[in-house]
Amino acid sequence: MLANLLKKGFSATAYDIVPAALDAAVALGAARAASPAEAAAAGDMVVTILPSSGNVEAAYLGAGGILEGAARGKLCIDMSTIDPGTSQRVAARLAENGIRFIDAPVSGGVGGATAGTLAIMVGGAPEDFAEAKPALDAMGANITHVGAVGAGEVAKLCNNLIAGAAFVAVSEAFRIAEGFGVDPKTLTQIIAKSSGATWVMEKNHPVPGIDPNSAASRDYAPGFMTDLMAKDLGLAVNAAREKRVPVSVAAAAQQVYRMASAHGLGRKDCAAVYRFLAPSPQEAPV
Amino acid sequence: MLANLLKKGFSATAYDIVPAALDAAVALGAARAASPAEAAAAGDMVVTILPSSGNVEAAYLGAGGILEGAARGKLCIDMSTIDPGTSQRVAARLAENGIRFIDAPVSGGVGGATAGTLAIMVGGAPEDFAEAKPALDAMGANITHVGAVGAGEVAKLCNNLIAGAAFVAVSEAFRIAEGFGVDPKTLTQIIAKSSGATWVMEKNHPVPGIDPNSAASRDYAPGFMTDLMAKDLGLAVNAAREKRVPVSVAAAAQQVYRMASAHGLGRKDCAAVYRFLAPSPQEAPV
Amino acid sequence: MLANLLKKGFSATAYDIVPAALDAAVALGAARAASPAEAAAAGDMVVTILPSSGNVEAAYLGAGGILEGAARGKLCIDMSTIDPGTSQRVAARLAENGIRFIDAPVSGGVGGATAGTLAIMVGGAPEDFAEAKPALDAMGANITHVGAVGAGEVAKLCNNLIAGAAFVAVSEAFRIAEGFGVDPKTLTQIIAKSSGATWVMEKNHPVPGIDPNSAASRDYAPGFMTDLMAKDLGLAVNAAREKRVPVSVAAAAQQVYRMASAHGLGRKDCAAVYRFLAPSPQEAPV
Amino acid sequence: MLANLLKKGFSATAYDIVPAALDAAVALGAARAASPAEAAAAGDMVVTILPSSGNVEAAYLGAGGILEGAARGKLCIDMSTIDPGTSQRVAARLAENGIRFIDAPVSGGVGGATAGTLAIMVGGAPEDFAEAKPALDAMGANITHVGAVGAGEVAKLCNNLIAGAAFVAVSEAFRIAEGFGVDPKTLTQIIAKSSGATWVMEKNHPVPGIDPNSAASRDYAPGFMTDLMAKDLGLAVNAAREKRVPVSVAAAAQQVYRMASAHGLGRKDCAAVYRFLAPSPQEAPV
Repeated sequence: MLANLLKKGFSATAYDIVPAALDAAVALGAARAASPAEAAAAGDMVVTILPSSGNVEAAYLGAGGILEGAARGKLCIDMSTIDPGTSQRVAARLAENGIRFIDAPVSGGVGGATAGTLAIMVGGAPEDFAEAKPALDAMGANITHVGAVGAGEVAKLCNNLIAGAAFVAVSEAFRIAEGFGVDPKTLTQIIAKSSGATWVMEKNHPVPGIDPNSAASRDYAPGFMTDLMAKDLGLAVNAAREKRVPVSVAAAAQQVYRMASAHGLGRKDCAAVYRFLAPSPQEAPV
Repeated sequence: MLANLLKKGFSATAYDIVPAALDAAVALGAARAASPAEAAAAGDMVVTILPSSGNVEAAYLGAGGILEGAARGKLCIDMSTIDPGTSQRVAARLAENGIRFIDAPVSGGVGGATAGTLAIMVGGAPEDFAEAKPALDAMGANITHVGAVGAGEVAKLCNNLIAGAAFVAVSEAFRIAEGFGVDPKTLTQIIAKSSGATWVMEKNHPVPGIDPNSAASRDYAPGFMTDLMAKDLGLAVNAAREKRVPVSVAAAAQQVYRMASAHGLGRKDCAAVYRFLAPSPQEAPV
Repeated sequence: MLANLLKKGFSATAYDIVPAALDAAVALGAARAASPAEAAAAGDMVVTILPSSGNVEAAYLGAGGILEGAARGKLCIDMSTIDPGTSQRVAARLAENGIRFIDAPVSGGVGGATAGTLAIMVGGAPEDFAEAKPALDAMGANITHVGAVGAGEVAKLCNNLIAGAAFVAVSEAFRIAEGFGVDPKTLTQIIAKSSGATWVMEKNHPVPGIDPNSAASRDYAPGFMTDLMAKDLGLAVNAAREKRVPVSVAAAAQQVYRMASAHGLGRKDCAAVYRFLAPSPQEAPV
Repeated sequence: MLANLLKKGFSATAYDIVPAALDAAVALGAARAASPAEAAAAGDMVVTILPSSGNVEAAYLGAGGILEGAARGKLCIDMSTIDPGTSQRVAARLAENGIRFIDAPVSGGVGGATAGTLAIMVGGAPEDFAEAKPALDAMGANITHVGAVGAGEVAKLCNNLIAGAAFVAVSEAFRIAEGFGVDPKTLTQIIAKSSGATWVMEKNHPVPGIDPNSAASRDYAPGFMTDLMAKDLGLAVNAAREKRVPVSVAAAAQQVYRMASAHGLGRKDCAAVYRFLAPSPQEAPV
């Protein structure tokens, strides 16, 4: 993503808590900063992407953080996938100091990041979105303004909640069919024209051998990893908790990915839940 | 369905354990039988549609049942939605007496039954399917031969497992979005182009007001009732049990429909799970 | 169980669909029958124990079954763990021919069966219970009359539903505690005096090393196997389905045992869900 | 709790974001502070109890918070029920400034708080626990040092995870039994002596009329409210997420309480899940 920004003519001052990652950024052409605050002091915009809500809070609000370094009026773009509630709380704290914030999580994986074809869902004020648009265009291909701060995160999590539940449901259905000896290709054709039709079955069928281009047909090479699906469903369930929404199916799906990860499939494509959901052997008569 | 058979030139001898239903069949032009056995003795084929696996077992194998009345070589078509394992066990018992059996459950609701546009998924021997085809054509519009006996049931249950899980997952996602103030129409457009796309959201959106033709926009008038979705997910989970397949998401979805039914939504369209999944009010500070 | 009956002075005529099992029964001193019907024709009472509801239906109601062989007034004791609805349906069919039936499932495992210390929960008419009591006393030590036909099964399933959910819940709690570095012995002492106290934690602690006598401390040697817990929770969830009771926790627990079995723990004590519920490794930063 | 502290001879300087609550504290004899920082500057120890992790973070680390006001060496006692990870993060930030922190969540409800008989589970350094002990003794009756910072929260959440799952499991079991017409008193006696025995059934039976002293027999007057159980299970599931532990049963139970709350039972005793888990009416034949 940084490479694409630089390639499109932007300049950047970078900071990363992992020295090797910072070195790599500098090798790409970025200037080197000693802290988030120092990086935030440079340039017109701040762009962050971090693995967790806690990391985002620390980078923005912690000691040496962006809040300390960013001038009044600065626009911050956080591209992390985190709790929308955290996005809103960080934005509110920054706003007290006149600093602007939008959330802009991405979809499309490592491939999309390299190719600059990421989908980016944005939450924030319309004028902030407009100002960020050129930089986002440098990194992605499908940029949508969803709503106010946090709405980008919400859109990503809601989509992944549905997709994540669908991968499990489709896998369960095909495991049952398998148990009864029903041909999975025939079943695929029937479901494709019926109420069970989903992007998941059509574009990334979890059963190996149905679609030669699916992750399943390439030993579940990702694609979108089980660990990331577990993370996103965890965020969705947590967002539901914050708003007191009951989410039985999302919670069940979250735990299936968590178990699949614990049993060795964390780095495989999330369609590998099909592999995890193998039937148990016939019980001994008792 | 009987009316359509008679209209297309078939003649029928009918039996129903409910006298009023039998009277209605006779009023349509069917002859009256005093038991399943007597009905099965008449005509070239036997057609049954019953609410549960137990009913099907009783009608075929119980006292005064079809096994007693049907001649060697007779073809039986069971259009009930039941456990595929029951279909297979009944077929095996009938086969001992040279009687043939296919399962042919239907989709499409009361509207489809009246209009003769039901989808019918069939499990059984190819020659039995061929022989049944004209009668099935009189009742439905989309007839598929899925595989051996039981495969029709499996196809229907697997499709409804996915659709049933999707209605809950989509409802959960939109309830979360609502909690964060995200516009459901915008979210619908985003998900429609992403990995969360499903027939469910596109054709029967569970949130009222998004699609004027959805059940949700007509106070969840069915369509396919919550009680029937609860039944079909129950059959799917039970089929999984028989084959020792783990089905966490299907089981969670089944219980959501069961609870929605217990809280008054059983006769509403199954998309009414969205209504059931309302957030709880803000807790009092403690 | 047969050995204990013979040892206490009963005589028996045996049938088993598995020849080796029948040979073993004959070696213990039983007479040999060629079918359930033939076995049922001999003696004063019929005693059955079979692995599934389908087996019980076949043995009683199928070709060559007990219904064919048993005289009017005969008392049948079914000690299988099966669907209570099946017990009731079989009893109703037998009653049409004046044959009596009680359900009498057992707890206590292979050890209890050998030692004659099984707990037996009985459903049936009080006079049938009284008549069966001497034979049950020969096989078990703790015989309870629960209620009408099916009530013995219901009591066993309801107990195991709670115990099964508790093994999972206790395991989840101690896995969380472990993640935060809390000493499991201290936690055990706290919970033992609080609202989380359960037989499960006190008598068969799922964490190895807390109690030297627990299955967990002996590599999860059973005890009561994971496969049997999966079976009993499956029966409980199915019984709930029959009565339209929502059972989210039972259904979730059932699937955990199913998955634990699929991943190699089926023959271990059911407390081995603790082993199955290992945390997944730290995700890579993304 | 404040009243008990003052009654036992402690003096206090109070702050509450709700003016009426602060007035009430002053009426009891506390001095009035204008911010957490000001309150923290007074006295030898800081005692906090707040409804959420976010509130605790804000009170300790936010503008005008305890971190600003508390002198080096001050001991802070947080009695809130919150994420153990938050306790650890707050403690780490305070430690950078030489301020000490222990977590000391309480059980026992409003009754226990008034009577001074709360159970208090404490996480923190042994010497900090010793120093806090006299103040804790003034507020509770059963004070346990569990382990390092966060361990008090972990112990409370783990206990409530098990109790919360047990209330649902026991309710599900008795609803099934009810469906089959089994007497709940007989079933209670059987389970009490078997592997399904739990504190929950023995001390707060969820079925009305079994135990005259249970919440169930008093229209589910709390006791421990459904909303609080939903909160604590939410914290437990979130703690599991942080440590990547799969928690299917806890997650299922959490959602049941969430739904029970959404359907009007939030302020009832958590045993009211039994009421929520009513069976749905018989489906119409289709």
